[in-house]
Amino acid sequence: MRAAVLNAGRVLVRDDVEEPVPGPGQVLVEVAACGICGSDLHFAQHGAEMQALGRTMEGVPRNGTELDLDRDVYLGHEFSARVLEAGPDTTALPAGTLVTAFPVLPRPDGSVDAIVYSNTVKGGYGERMVLAAPLVLEVPNGLPAHHAALTEPMAVGLHAVVRSDIRAGQRAVVVGCGPVGLAVIAALAVRGVESIVATDFSSARRKLAATMGATEVVDPREETVWHRAGAATPLVVFEAVGVPGVLDDILRCAPARSRVVVVGVCMGADTVHPYFGISKELSVDFVLGYTPEEFAASLRSIAEGEIDVSPLVTGRVGLDRLAWAFDALADPEEHCKIVVEP
Amino acid sequence: MRAAVLNAGRVLVRDDVEEPVPGPGQVLVEVAACGICGSDLHFAQHGAEMQALGRTMEGVPRNGTELDLDRDVYLGHEFSARVLEAGPDTTALPAGTLVTAFPVLPRPDGSVDAIVYSNTVKGGYGERMVLAAPLVLEVPNGLPAHHAALTEPMAVGLHAVVRSDIRAGQRAVVVGCGPVGLAVIAALAVRGVESIVATDFSSARRKLAATMGATEVVDPREETVWHRAGAATPLVVFEAVGVPGVLDDILRCAPARSRVVVVGVCMGADTVHPYFGISKELSVDFVLGYTPEEFAASLRSIAEGEIDVSPLVTGRVGLDRLAWAFDALADPEEHCKIVVEP
Repeated sequence: MRAAVLNAGRVLVRDDVEEPVPGPGQVLVEVAACGICGSDLHFAQHGAEMQALGRTMEGVPRNGTELDLDRDVYLGHEFSARVLEAGPDTTALPAGTLVTAFPVLPRPDGSVDAIVYSNTVKGGYGERMVLAAPLVLEVPNGLPAHHAALTEPMAVGLHAVVRSDIRAGQRAVVVGCGPVGLAVIAALAVRGVESIVATDFSSARRKLAATMGATEVVDPREETVWHRAGAATPLVVFEAVGVPGVLDDILRCAPARSRVVVVGVCMGADTVHPYFGISKELSVDFVLGYTPEEFAASLRSIAEGEIDVSPLVTGRVGLDRLAWAFDALADPEEHCKIVVEP
Repeated sequence: MRAAVLNAGRVLVRDDVEEPVPGPGQVLVEVAACGICGSDLHFAQHGAEMQALGRTMEGVPRNGTELDLDRDVYLGHEFSARVLEAGPDTTALPAGTLVTAFPVLPRPDGSVDAIVYSNTVKGGYGERMVLAAPLVLEVPNGLPAHHAALTEPMAVGLHAVVRSDIRAGQRAVVVGCGPVGLAVIAALAVRGVESIVATDFSSARRKLAATMGATEVVDPREETVWHRAGAATPLVVFEAVGVPGVLDDILRCAPARSRVVVVGVCMGADTVHPYFGISKELSVDFVLGYTPEEFAASLRSIAEGEIDVSPLVTGRVGLDRLAWAFDALADPEEHCKIVVEP
């Protein structure tokens, strides 16, 4: 089949990728749409460093497979797809049903492969892939495939907001209005948070922030978000930039007793001054991913119109333009989320 | 009166320090004992940098006074004292009563001065000082003055444990067994935490850790605390070292979903990898000080024998040996807490 792969950091389109075959408990699907995630771009550029850093880390189980970056790597975890057929002894939704799924694939031994970067598990940047039957969710209400594909990134925002434990009366600050920051804003609005102050250098992104539910947007060249949000009461601050220096700036500026939720993935080393955190008794929660329940809730929010994701989709391309899209996403004025339709 | 001061980073003993005079709402006391805090040592060495860093920080009210490090600076915030006399229109405990107090002094304008480093507010490294009458607590049960002086450092440990929200069934790891780490261990034991794994390079400190309630002590040259505590379940980790690199090492090694409480004050810049925190969804709580209620609870715990602070006091000296004591505290094998008795 046809699929885009990453090989030694370059995006290539292959016509001869081995067809995925659904095993027991799996469903073969035809990919309808797959969003490009910032982490895909980052992985393309810094995959080797990410792997090296991951190797030094303890306290997490290893799943036993190391990725070979010089072989083809399959990507694409923000997908929607149509059911083709169930694997042996497996019940699936009728063929043609539009679905999405929590992107992991259990192995026969009980461990799981994430559908994110893999030499073996195919992702959404190809014509077909297999999903775990129990994780497949039907896309309701006639939601278009290229909107259903945003279930995953919106779940990331929902998870960050759930972990922040923010209450409606607290004031939220969102630093960075890329897809992650925008997903956080949408989830804050759904939760009923009345004051959502967002900041980004890009005017297009600030406009999107307001569309998604930010109650105030701040151009950091004109005013700091801290000045706007006020220093009197603790804030719940979402770090959705993931670039070195941002976390320390938040620690330096946030009001005492604020809670900082780090949802932007800064992959490299970062310098912070614990003195700022200690002096103001700040707390920092690092968050990642989402639960299956949050994933399902995200799909419901989009399908029921609580969250309108249509403004986020700034491009729809075929597989052959994936490499172009990876580059195009560097410009926040032009693009937010580009969806690939294989 | 006689008092030790810090001047341009050096400890000097002056015989001609102006007598403190209690104003309305204040009580004049004679200092009985005052512990030397690690932050005093740090301030002596790095006071200028601390002030510079503090000046860059936002989100906290400024109290309007900048310390002049080239003038005499009064220190000493871990004190016990005997009541001498009340200020005008003020009721105080009978003269001679042994007391301690939450170390702040309200100003007439409603703001407060911390009794910690000041060009004007005298601390416990002198013969006499004034306290705020409403904050004065009588030392009960005949507790000796040099033990009552440890109310403050033990309150720091209690506050960290309260903020950690640890439950008895969770596993605690204490990295660093200086006075702060030992105070954390004591508070964990009082809270009924059944598994307290402590680590320190110093064998004397490890012995003290076991005395104060650690259920296991680990020499980091022989085994990592992570290996001992296990990677299977989230830990509550107390960072009580405050040296660059320690926080990142904890982020790298702690099991997924662990909570890190930073109670050691790393004053300089520190390098961390947010990737570790994100990959494992760690949370980091920076904590400082204690509430008046925690201060009172700390005094009660010591006076009622819940916490035996006597093993912590490794030296008792007069004012003239304060400079010597500042140096002596650099050796963790010899000393833990030296108490000055002016």
